[in-house]
Amino acid sequence: MNIQGIPYRTIWPAPDAASVEIIDQTRLPHEFITRRLASLHEVATAIKDMWVRGAPLIGATAAYGMALAVREDPSDLMLKQACATLGDTRPTAINLHWALERVRALLQPLPPSLRTQVAWAEAAAICEEDVAINRAIGTNGFSLIRALWEKKTAPINILTHCNAGWLATVDWGTALSPIYMAHDAGIPLHVWVDETRPRNQGASLTAWELMQHGVPHTVIVDNVGGHLMQHGMVDMVIVGTDRTTASGDVCNKIGTYLKALAAHDNGVPFYVALPGPTIDWSIRDGIREIPIEQRDGAEVAQIRGRTSTGELVSVSLTPEASPVANYAFDVTPARLVTGLITERGVCTASHNGLLGLYPERGA
Amino acid sequence: MNIQGIPYRTIWPAPDAASVEIIDQTRLPHEFITRRLASLHEVATAIKDMWVRGAPLIGATAAYGMALAVREDPSDLMLKQACATLGDTRPTAINLHWALERVRALLQPLPPSLRTQVAWAEAAAICEEDVAINRAIGTNGFSLIRALWEKKTAPINILTHCNAGWLATVDWGTALSPIYMAHDAGIPLHVWVDETRPRNQGASLTAWELMQHGVPHTVIVDNVGGHLMQHGMVDMVIVGTDRTTASGDVCNKIGTYLKALAAHDNGVPFYVALPGPTIDWSIRDGIREIPIEQRDGAEVAQIRGRTSTGELVSVSLTPEASPVANYAFDVTPARLVTGLITERGVCTASHNGLLGLYPERGA
Repeated sequence: MNIQGIPYRTIWPAPDAASVEIIDQTRLPHEFITRRLASLHEVATAIKDMWVRGAPLIGATAAYGMALAVREDPSDLMLKQACATLGDTRPTAINLHWALERVRALLQPLPPSLRTQVAWAEAAAICEEDVAINRAIGTNGFSLIRALWEKKTAPINILTHCNAGWLATVDWGTALSPIYMAHDAGIPLHVWVDETRPRNQGASLTAWELMQHGVPHTVIVDNVGGHLMQHGMVDMVIVGTDRTTASGDVCNKIGTYLKALAAHDNGVPFYVALPGPTIDWSIRDGIREIPIEQRDGAEVAQIRGRTSTGELVSVSLTPEASPVANYAFDVTPARLVTGLITERGVCTASHNGLLGLYPERGA
Repeated sequence: MNIQGIPYRTIWPAPDAASVEIIDQTRLPHEFITRRLASLHEVATAIKDMWVRGAPLIGATAAYGMALAVREDPSDLMLKQACATLGDTRPTAINLHWALERVRALLQPLPPSLRTQVAWAEAAAICEEDVAINRAIGTNGFSLIRALWEKKTAPINILTHCNAGWLATVDWGTALSPIYMAHDAGIPLHVWVDETRPRNQGASLTAWELMQHGVPHTVIVDNVGGHLMQHGMVDMVIVGTDRTTASGDVCNKIGTYLKALAAHDNGVPFYVALPGPTIDWSIRDGIREIPIEQRDGAEVAQIRGRTSTGELVSVSLTPEASPVANYAFDVTPARLVTGLITERGVCTASHNGLLGLYPERGA
């Protein structure tokens, strides 16, 4: 997508062909800074300190980390060490481990002299696959927006929660991919951007990427969506997901469930965009079976922003003696989901719906 | 309620009997500062700059402002000027105008020499009436908590949104009054405190007053309540309201509707505590008929907190070029409300329910 009119991805090989460049997302939306990563150590820092975030982007970055590691030292020992070092950066990120194992398994049987070149190509392939999946999600979701537009013939208002945009992937994003396609195709639309407390990914990342690409949008606090839907000010909701169960329950950023309830109560279509690989075919009951991560309470008690002099500082919001809890995700039951937008098409949020698109899982 | 073990109200006559003292709520939860107001001008500043806030407390403060004004100058002209000056501080606060008119109408026929004494007594009476109403709401809501406790025999988890505590009133509060009574009566309970973006009244005021009174509580972001209810971690919800329609629709801080939806979806009782005077008998359909105030977007785009060195600063959270919208209230339809807790008792959220408690309105 575009930044100030120039097309970008979130990760790209540097012109020296010996390093990789990324956007430092910890500085957004206040500063746009790119960084060059030239070693295993630098990639590990970039993932750990969340210069890059979002499951697909973490996987792609880790793959480049493997390539940089074997470039320094193509030995079996380094292959093992690089996997361990990168794997420790975000222990619960499934995509990270998937990408590391994919590169490791490919390199292991090869003679060390070939490993750098193959690893570099594989990292690029992982990036291209992500872009292809997201582009397909975009195309499939675009049809839904176009259908609304043909019926309404007034700008389409879409609400989204958290950041499932191109910044979380290599390009296009998941939930925002249909929005970019519709915008680029000239369909007039406007996005309500949920702030998404406590980490404010909506206010800081979604708003920034929509603004840079020129998509009309408005930032709102997470409390507002229900009111907007009561007054016909939302035509559809599209969110991303970290994990979808085989029955169509959707685990996503905390607060998604509340927006799904409001959509259901007001007859607003509620769609979830997801890459097929994030479907967890082993789970049926999302609310009972998906453990919800509790993160550091400091994410709730403190917030970082820009002072009037341009400095980025953290400030405390709560009484020092008050306990704080920080549940990071919630589960939206399938009954509240109008449809799932995948790279293979759109289906109902149900086991049968998913099997229709992924028949190989019906065996 | 208590602050560090000492009973306080939010407003009280100073020992000199020529001024009134208040808590500067703009410094909470970071600093506890009381201020002495000795003139009409100082009272106007206190209301305008929100050192005091909450409808009942604004009314009580304005009444003392009238007393201080006529103490300076008991003339008819001053009576008129004081009403105008105080009325301009928060133009949309209905309680403010009600209190001013009540004092003005009482003083107007009196000889100037008597006005100071009568105004002072009337301001005190307005305070006592507020405390009596809130105490009655507390007693009525207490029965609901006690009934839950007798059934559960484990600590009762209550979720609340925004601040409808004693800081918004003269004492006790509305939604928190039953909680203080239950806590003081020895019923073990724990309060989930919604942060309440954008102005964070939950994180800064509700958490602070519960902490000072020793009531166990945990601060959460507004996105969390639905998840907690899905997992049986909320036994009841109690919120306040700015305006209740004759049919039981409830206008309250933005985001209340989302919590009511989640409570309904999970079979959690959802109660609204309100003083009878906040019922708007002229309105039936809250969603259609109650205009929702849109406030300055800066309340969303910026937030104030305490730096590590103890300084209070505002920081920006959003991209500078991103538009922001700030809807301040929403309406929860009566069908989602389990009951209304008033000073006269608990009733269903319906016209018949309300008429049962306020039969004089049925004429």
